[in-house]
Amino acid sequence: MKKKYAIGMDLGGTNLRVALVSRDGDVVKKIKEPTSEEILDSILSSVSSLFSDEIAGIGLGIAGLIDREGGNVLISPNLPAIKGLHLISEIKERFSVPVFIENDANAAAFGENWVGAGKEFPSFFLFTLGTGIGGGIIQDKKLLNVAAEVGHMTINANGNRCHCGNFGCLESYASANAILLKVVAALEEGRESSLTEICNGNFYKITSEYVYRAALDGDILSREILRDAGKYLGIGVANVINLMSPDAVIFTGGLTGAWDIYIQEAIKEASKRAFKELFDKVKIVPSLLGDDAGIIGSAGLVFHNNSFRGGI
Amino acid sequence: MKKKYAIGMDLGGTNLRVALVSRDGDVVKKIKEPTSEEILDSILSSVSSLFSDEIAGIGLGIAGLIDREGGNVLISPNLPAIKGLHLISEIKERFSVPVFIENDANAAAFGENWVGAGKEFPSFFLFTLGTGIGGGIIQDKKLLNVAAEVGHMTINANGNRCHCGNFGCLESYASANAILLKVVAALEEGRESSLTEICNGNFYKITSEYVYRAALDGDILSREILRDAGKYLGIGVANVINLMSPDAVIFTGGLTGAWDIYIQEAIKEASKRAFKELFDKVKIVPSLLGDDAGIIGSAGLVFHNNSFRGGI
Repeated sequence: MKKKYAIGMDLGGTNLRVALVSRDGDVVKKIKEPTSEEILDSILSSVSSLFSDEIAGIGLGIAGLIDREGGNVLISPNLPAIKGLHLISEIKERFSVPVFIENDANAAAFGENWVGAGKEFPSFFLFTLGTGIGGGIIQDKKLLNVAAEVGHMTINANGNRCHCGNFGCLESYASANAILLKVVAALEEGRESSLTEICNGNFYKITSEYVYRAALDGDILSREILRDAGKYLGIGVANVINLMSPDAVIFTGGLTGAWDIYIQEAIKEASKRAFKELFDKVKIVPSLLGDDAGIIGSAGLVFHNNSFRGGI
Repeated sequence: MKKKYAIGMDLGGTNLRVALVSRDGDVVKKIKEPTSEEILDSILSSVSSLFSDEIAGIGLGIAGLIDREGGNVLISPNLPAIKGLHLISEIKERFSVPVFIENDANAAAFGENWVGAGKEFPSFFLFTLGTGIGGGIIQDKKLLNVAAEVGHMTINANGNRCHCGNFGCLESYASANAILLKVVAALEEGRESSLTEICNGNFYKITSEYVYRAALDGDILSREILRDAGKYLGIGVANVINLMSPDAVIFTGGLTGAWDIYIQEAIKEASKRAFKELFDKVKIVPSLLGDDAGIIGSAGLVFHNNSFRGGI
């Protein structure tokens, strides 16, 4: 008889999420904890607490460049502790089930494709909008085996240096990190904003959620910075549309909370920049699975491995 | 018995190429003429002169956005005469064989994948470097059914308006057109260059080949402009590497003649910008089929239609 569940993992810069996922893509049980230096121990103990005879395999979605064949993480800027760990072999040895590894945004795209907002679209591009910006590409219902590092696409040839070493990356203009850096710089320069009161003068306590809420309450600085970031995001979206001509663009991640200002501005900008014929056919929609896209998608890799490069 | 040949067509902004191509991808006979306003007549008469009972089908590679299902050209900036023509139905009616339509750069990519420089690479990105800049993507030996309009990827958020309506497009910095505009502007400003003598003072007679030859002979202005264009091309290459992590990047088109200056500069720039782990694994090579990539590739679509979305 077929085993009922898979364990899906989503390891980003700030959180480790591990979940028990059914063959229908339902999350049965979920563990969430902050990432730590002892990342391998955290992974092994979380998986252990969900493991049973009913587990068909384990899927790992990890922020960074993945060597799928070798089962390694090549580079993970926000998770330096993970580099060089032979994750797949460590986990296989301990649990003796098939283990799959994928980039976290790719895993999330597979999740949306399987049981989320991408279900009805043969092809789509997923943007993960958080501290950084990631991407995942579904083409003919298949996950493209590519890096999809859309956050590190240059949109400004002579722009500032990004932490990746490149210059003028989308991520340095449109991510939550970029927004917060701009907010803090403006407040330090003495710009007026309701955020000063909200954070009691401690600018470093400000989160992107604060900025969005202040913007909704009419704070001019917050609106200005969110719109500006959205405009740059729109350039990235137009580039993706002109290159991949997807049926849909799906947005996920914390910043989608700021849909009405930030994402709307991105859509407006993309509409001016992409080929009209391609823009007119693309649907722009929010994620259905939200924060669970990564855990569901990485578990989905286990169930669909024989076919997931070949579609679902 | 299987029919021996297919007719492949490559219709760009300046030339119409039509050829008889064997099942091995050999060009048996070739017609080349300048494009005219009576484009449909030119196509029909060229195909007619190559047609016989041995023709398995006709493949059309056309510069512009293609509606593959409907068999139409949606938009073709350099070929306004072709818009709205129901090319497939016109040709099918006249010749009664299967007819396939594809973007010209996509067709060229398929040609390089079939019998050219891409043969050994499971995945590659083809740049066509001419008047404009086009792209084609091969993934797991399959032609991706996407626009691949890499020339209209913004690499400079606040750059000049491109003829496509977008701003700061790769094509406005790195194409032959962009190079010639810069050369003429510099000469009109009175910059010294051996090009002034070469063109007898008629700046509009200068071609990109003149510029490259002058550069090789040590002309400082020509070297400067070619290097600058190459640098921008390198940004486009880095973006493609970070997004699609291909096994190879293949360059084709007139500007590849300027390999030692223009392409070398692009490679240098891309090496600084792309993720090191991805750049280190990518091979950067010239096209093997040159100007014939489009005609061979579009003929290849006829022979491989059942499998070409599924690989060759």
